[in-house]
Amino acid sequence: MRTYDITLTISPDLVVWPGDPAVELERVEKIEAGADANVSRINMGVHTGTHVDAPYHFLENGGTVENLDLKMLVGRAYVLHVDDKVDVITPELLEKSDIPPRTRRVLFRTRNSDLWAKDHKKFQKDFVAISPEAAEYLINKGVKLVGVDYLSVAPFDDPIPTHEVFLKAEVVVVEGLDLSEVSQGRYTLYCLPLKLAGTEGAPARALLVGV
Amino acid sequence: MRTYDITLTISPDLVVWPGDPAVELERVEKIEAGADANVSRINMGVHTGTHVDAPYHFLENGGTVENLDLKMLVGRAYVLHVDDKVDVITPELLEKSDIPPRTRRVLFRTRNSDLWAKDHKKFQKDFVAISPEAAEYLINKGVKLVGVDYLSVAPFDDPIPTHEVFLKAEVVVVEGLDLSEVSQGRYTLYCLPLKLAGTEGAPARALLVGV
Repeated sequence: MRTYDITLTISPDLVVWPGDPAVELERVEKIEAGADANVSRINMGVHTGTHVDAPYHFLENGGTVENLDLKMLVGRAYVLHVDDKVDVITPELLEKSDIPPRTRRVLFRTRNSDLWAKDHKKFQKDFVAISPEAAEYLINKGVKLVGVDYLSVAPFDDPIPTHEVFLKAEVVVVEGLDLSEVSQGRYTLYCLPLKLAGTEGAPARALLVGV
Repeated sequence: MRTYDITLTISPDLVVWPGDPAVELERVEKIEAGADANVSRINMGVHTGTHVDAPYHFLENGGTVENLDLKMLVGRAYVLHVDDKVDVITPELLEKSDIPPRTRRVLFRTRNSDLWAKDHKKFQKDFVAISPEAAEYLINKGVKLVGVDYLSVAPFDDPIPTHEVFLKAEVVVVEGLDLSEVSQGRYTLYCLPLKLAGTEGAPARALLVGV
């Protein structure tokens, strides 16, 4: 069984959402300076790189990330390849797609993944995202986890509606996946976010294992 | 199959290694202040809470955390219960233990786990750790991952030898596990550290699934 690490590498060079904290990664104790051990410090926004959103990200009384159900974060998932010409994932696109019935976790591989493969250094506003209507469509089909390959499930110019639809329905939103190496099809997803107390999201490590 | 979350919750209250950076967790954008979304920032040492050590932690030319083999971090593991009276895990203890032959991953549940269950607020120097001789013993038996339930595999007063023995042998060291709820026996371990670039360790989320 092949394992795919679909996680972005966190470094000061990693593109972050405009206005979010930059990534600082600093070695604060150094063996070469006489310390027993090398010790580093990380300072970053919790929506850095590959991460999950909890309801509290967009909902004032929403749940926080340490309470997300692990049963949702681990399990069978379907990776859908979306044509490079598509700008927004709509109900019409989903209706015609190959997502199997009873799919609970869907990851969308779009042209966004090429940006990670090319190691781009500048935030891109024209990333492929999910319309609020498509979010409703997925919820009606029973989807409980949605993953995308740029830093937001929602279009850049309209961040609130798609997030609200998903988060009100307690769908787990996974953002910042690198799906550039992954074929369309069925996998087992392991998406484990840091267990941060009371926050609206957390960085995660995410793997896909072939089934 | 029951799933155990053996991860410590990261908050400013979490006990950290003396001298390591404290945990800061701050909400920097707030819906109630007019922002589109809540957004938080985390600032902490990478050896905070449940975390893995890479060889570079104690070895100047050692490998860094993003290059740890995922095949080691996920797979069958044995949880050994160590009597509450034991202060140091020695070869003699291991010789008499119930660790099955060909075990590749061992997690030691000691009296340390009671500290997490009691949510202690002050660093404890007298935690149970592994002697360098016991580290050699485990390596000779083919162990590739070792997990402990306090913040170091090594005794407080002698941190270097045990770490060096494990890390020179490229054994993955997992520290800060909460094994208070876990019985002795066989499990599948999922230990996924953040994919930090070039660092000597990373915080992780760790689960055990009953087999």
